[in-house]
Amino acid sequence: MINITLPDGAVRQYEPGVSALDVAKSISEGLARKVLAANVNGEVWDATRPITNDASLKLLMWDDTDGKSTFWHSSAHLMAEAVETMFPGVKFWVGPPLDNGFYYDMDLGDRKLSEEDLAALEKKMNELAKQNNVYLRKEISKPDAVQYFTEKGDEYKLDLLQNLEDGKITFYTQGNFTDLCRGPHIPNTGFIKAIKLTNIAGAYWKGDEKNKQLTRVYGITFPSQKELDAYLQMLEEAKKRDHRKLGKELGIYTMDDDVGPGLIMWMPNGTIIIEELEKLAKETEEDAGYKRVVTPHIAKESMYLTSGHLPYYADSMYPPMELDGEKYYLKSMNCPHHHKIFAAEPKSYRDLPYRIAEYGTVYRYEQSGELFGLMRVRCLHMNDAHIYCTKEQFGAEFRAVNDMYLKYFKIFGVDKYVMRLSLHSPEKLGIKYVNEPELWKETEEMVRNVLISSNIPYVEVQDEAAFYGPKIDVQIYSVIGREFTLATNQVDFSQGRSFKLEYTTQDNKSETPLIIHRAPLGTHERFIGFLLEHYAGKLPVWLAPLQVKILPISDKFMDYANDVRKRLRSVGIRVEIDDRSEKIGKKIREAELSRVPYMLVLGEKEVNENKLSIRRQGKGDTGTQTVDEFIGIITAEIKNRSAE
Amino acid sequence: MINITLPDGAVRQYEPGVSALDVAKSISEGLARKVLAANVNGEVWDATRPITNDASLKLLMWDDTDGKSTFWHSSAHLMAEAVETMFPGVKFWVGPPLDNGFYYDMDLGDRKLSEEDLAALEKKMNELAKQNNVYLRKEISKPDAVQYFTEKGDEYKLDLLQNLEDGKITFYTQGNFTDLCRGPHIPNTGFIKAIKLTNIAGAYWKGDEKNKQLTRVYGITFPSQKELDAYLQMLEEAKKRDHRKLGKELGIYTMDDDVGPGLIMWMPNGTIIIEELEKLAKETEEDAGYKRVVTPHIAKESMYLTSGHLPYYADSMYPPMELDGEKYYLKSMNCPHHHKIFAAEPKSYRDLPYRIAEYGTVYRYEQSGELFGLMRVRCLHMNDAHIYCTKEQFGAEFRAVNDMYLKYFKIFGVDKYVMRLSLHSPEKLGIKYVNEPELWKETEEMVRNVLISSNIPYVEVQDEAAFYGPKIDVQIYSVIGREFTLATNQVDFSQGRSFKLEYTTQDNKSETPLIIHRAPLGTHERFIGFLLEHYAGKLPVWLAPLQVKILPISDKFMDYANDVRKRLRSVGIRVEIDDRSEKIGKKIREAELSRVPYMLVLGEKEVNENKLSIRRQGKGDTGTQTVDEFIGIITAEIKNRSAE
Repeated sequence: MINITLPDGAVRQYEPGVSALDVAKSISEGLARKVLAANVNGEVWDATRPITNDASLKLLMWDDTDGKSTFWHSSAHLMAEAVETMFPGVKFWVGPPLDNGFYYDMDLGDRKLSEEDLAALEKKMNELAKQNNVYLRKEISKPDAVQYFTEKGDEYKLDLLQNLEDGKITFYTQGNFTDLCRGPHIPNTGFIKAIKLTNIAGAYWKGDEKNKQLTRVYGITFPSQKELDAYLQMLEEAKKRDHRKLGKELGIYTMDDDVGPGLIMWMPNGTIIIEELEKLAKETEEDAGYKRVVTPHIAKESMYLTSGHLPYYADSMYPPMELDGEKYYLKSMNCPHHHKIFAAEPKSYRDLPYRIAEYGTVYRYEQSGELFGLMRVRCLHMNDAHIYCTKEQFGAEFRAVNDMYLKYFKIFGVDKYVMRLSLHSPEKLGIKYVNEPELWKETEEMVRNVLISSNIPYVEVQDEAAFYGPKIDVQIYSVIGREFTLATNQVDFSQGRSFKLEYTTQDNKSETPLIIHRAPLGTHERFIGFLLEHYAGKLPVWLAPLQVKILPISDKFMDYANDVRKRLRSVGIRVEIDDRSEKIGKKIREAELSRVPYMLVLGEKEVNENKLSIRRQGKGDTGTQTVDEFIGIITAEIKNRSAE
Repeated sequence: MINITLPDGAVRQYEPGVSALDVAKSISEGLARKVLAANVNGEVWDATRPITNDASLKLLMWDDTDGKSTFWHSSAHLMAEAVETMFPGVKFWVGPPLDNGFYYDMDLGDRKLSEEDLAALEKKMNELAKQNNVYLRKEISKPDAVQYFTEKGDEYKLDLLQNLEDGKITFYTQGNFTDLCRGPHIPNTGFIKAIKLTNIAGAYWKGDEKNKQLTRVYGITFPSQKELDAYLQMLEEAKKRDHRKLGKELGIYTMDDDVGPGLIMWMPNGTIIIEELEKLAKETEEDAGYKRVVTPHIAKESMYLTSGHLPYYADSMYPPMELDGEKYYLKSMNCPHHHKIFAAEPKSYRDLPYRIAEYGTVYRYEQSGELFGLMRVRCLHMNDAHIYCTKEQFGAEFRAVNDMYLKYFKIFGVDKYVMRLSLHSPEKLGIKYVNEPELWKETEEMVRNVLISSNIPYVEVQDEAAFYGPKIDVQIYSVIGREFTLATNQVDFSQGRSFKLEYTTQDNKSETPLIIHRAPLGTHERFIGFLLEHYAGKLPVWLAPLQVKILPISDKFMDYANDVRKRLRSVGIRVEIDDRSEKIGKKIREAELSRVPYMLVLGEKEVNENKLSIRRQGKGDTGTQTVDEFIGIITAEIKNRSAE
């Protein structure tokens, strides 16, 4: 018998050769029907693959990232089978899963695919899926594999085979389709209940434009039609809420070829949003005992050798500038500068926790192909802070940071979020991670304890820590369900020592502080991109670049309009008058389009009664008020940062 | 007879050969006694030099920069005479005037000068000065000059002669001392009434450390003992107010070798000052109709080729970073990015004046030898803005900017300031200045008209404009009389065209806007350096990093102290408690030293009466108040940004 250890720590005994699916069935048939794949000793396996020795086992379902990934990989094979059925002679290159769906690159000779072809392929895939064909894994020797594809005349797979080692090659077959594939796959095609082929694109073989152009077909599949419908609806909604479209319409940001790709310039309306966000952060941090600092955007190479950003992080940094025989780098993180500020004056236990925050701008190199609107940029603004504390203080400080995250989520109406505890990978100590196995263990345990004791739901992920310690990544979901990786909360047991940071303890010894790195709103670039989608551009009043638009019905009411404007301005409200000689209907329509939260319509009646007719964005006329009444309502809304 | 035109435009007639001194005498004997030199047709001349043709003439006195400069140049000769008298065989290199005083480099063989030598030299100089020896100018041929110094065995002056052209060589003699010298000089040594030799230093010949080290003696002289005394007292005071000393003591800023020279890191206390200054600027600009933007710190080479910063300004920029086959530069100015924001959306005459401000950080390369505390740095923070306007709007906009300067000066108690109108130099068109003679003339006239019509006192300086247009440099003086060049207000008729900026006029044509560049507080680095000296570190309450320190007499009063702290914090006052178990005397002494404006002493009496005993920094006990009374006073002081 072998011992199978489940995620909750329970150990069950089975005959050698048992599969994950067998284990699932031994627990419940209902469970077994949901199993897509399995994590066996840290590797993702087919759920049907025999387990021959003691192992840790996690069953993977649709809700697991690896489960989804396996599902979409199998769907790519299903699509390939459909293509081969409809277009015999097609040759395939690679067909990986994506974050959302999958694609397969194929050589269709001179044939171009049309929208009709996609529809026909979808139909064929549905037909094949219903056959419940099993994904069959077969280990095969390299010579046999080469012979197979040579006979088939498939130069693409032969090319792939070149880089594979004999003894580690597998074929997968479902129905009439066989592919060279590392796997794993779902048990059978019947799991795939809903199919959408989304796009056809050209893709040069191996990404090299000197090579032949292949056809890339994108698709996405789901275990039920309901999920596909929801996904398509979310896509439709996301298109309307596209932050690039809204960003341009609302004058939020711009980019320019002469400035450079990924370098956002914040226009006046975007700057107001940035400043309101930073004001919120300042207030929150002032209450929480943070102090503020301002540091330069560059530093010498020696600083980043000390911090370990060089070499660990070099690929993500801009190249150096050479000056007076020294190399200077644009900072990609604020931490090293903050450490220098910590070190600038001697510290004692009385000074700890020492919390310093900066509205920092950092520069990171992203491949130009990766750049995307505000989501992937090269210049990042962030409310960043570092907390230097003793081990005893760590728990309370780390927890306070998590609580700050939750406070922010509440303000922004983020109901759905996931915290991921990112751990190191012991095999990569000294390569990707600082080589301090004991400290990794200790700090990972400290963070886990904070999460458990605060009852925050979280998942653990291996091999995604920062190089100096474990971290929490926070994923939030917009109202239409799209996921954004936003904030991180990181522990650092390493840089304090590298920078020789010290404090004097109560009994007059020297100790190195622990450091917490945190940026709860992530970068302002990504966060504002998120907010534009989340609110569909209809920002809450406190964030709205323009809060009130005054719409006089005609020039006759300009005096009153100016008077109202002045009174609103005097209490700090962002207000403008539409003083054009246009019909009031047009003024209202355009104001609605510009997404200004409040419109004040002023005419004969309003002047006579000394009142305002109020329209709320998207809600039409909401009655009349005096200026004082209106000021009372809107200033309270701004002060409370109400969502609506 | 020849026509002599005086600065007020008056024309007087004299015999050819008349000297500036003669002209002065013809006006008044008292005036003549003050004349140090003269500006004749734009060149500085000896006051005694004969004028043979029609000329414009400005008599130069002590208050003129060129007058002072001549005075100190002549003083260097006087010092050389004293040195030669006391140390025969000495050889001289060069002896120029400085901004404050003069030096002379000399080869004294093996002899080292001592403090006693300086005192003896001062005595000798006073003696020689009283002889009223005339500075005699003599034109001399190059062969005769070479013969003179060859006979004297003076390899230094022979070296200088090599680069001089025959026909343009002059000797100056006073008393027994003759020097190769371009001049000009004051009429006679009797003008020099007060002498201080301030320093002895080593200086390599021609600044090359492979050469022999010469002795450099620094000195300063004045037309009266009173002025020397005031100067020495100012130096003494400036030493106490040294911003580097105060910056460290008060935790304002720090620097670090690993970050790099000239790169200031603002510590928490300095950051509070920066943020208060920026808050003032934001409020002021919001009222004045500015909008805010945020732009990256880098841009591609193409941007700076368009702007003309490359090549005109290349020496002051950091070297480029090479990325994806492009060169990126750290910005040394914000203007090009702002132009891109102007261009991002189409503009019409209705959008003008378009005023955009940024709290920008720019990077400029200063030689490391030039770096000095906060005064000369490489990373500069500034409240910067650009105004895009029509020609018709220019006058009002430029004037509004000047008025903003004056408003700021009032807030900071700057009573003495000078505006310098910096003009181009026609000979350097196309080299140092954009080659647009007509536009230079027109815009210089526009700026001059604004200054005249606003009754702002100003001086005009040739050849100090920006490359894209004329500018106003503002010099301000701290309370101890030291001069700081701070702010500039610049016109730009060139970059609008380079960047193809356009707006649509009322009759639907395309026009290029004029641009005003302005940064009224200059850089925050230099301005805070100025403020530290100006206030001797005793910042006004609104700027003080810590505004109130609560000093409980013993632990018994901590509850009351905490209560008071909480109430002050709730209205936004920066307050701390000195909760150490120290004697109240020590607490007060240390609080005074830390320059916190208000100290609240709390003991038995205060708790019983529910009051506060108030101490004002430097003024001792100022009576008792209730918390509410105190809050009323201090918040008003903060709101009004009172100086005291």
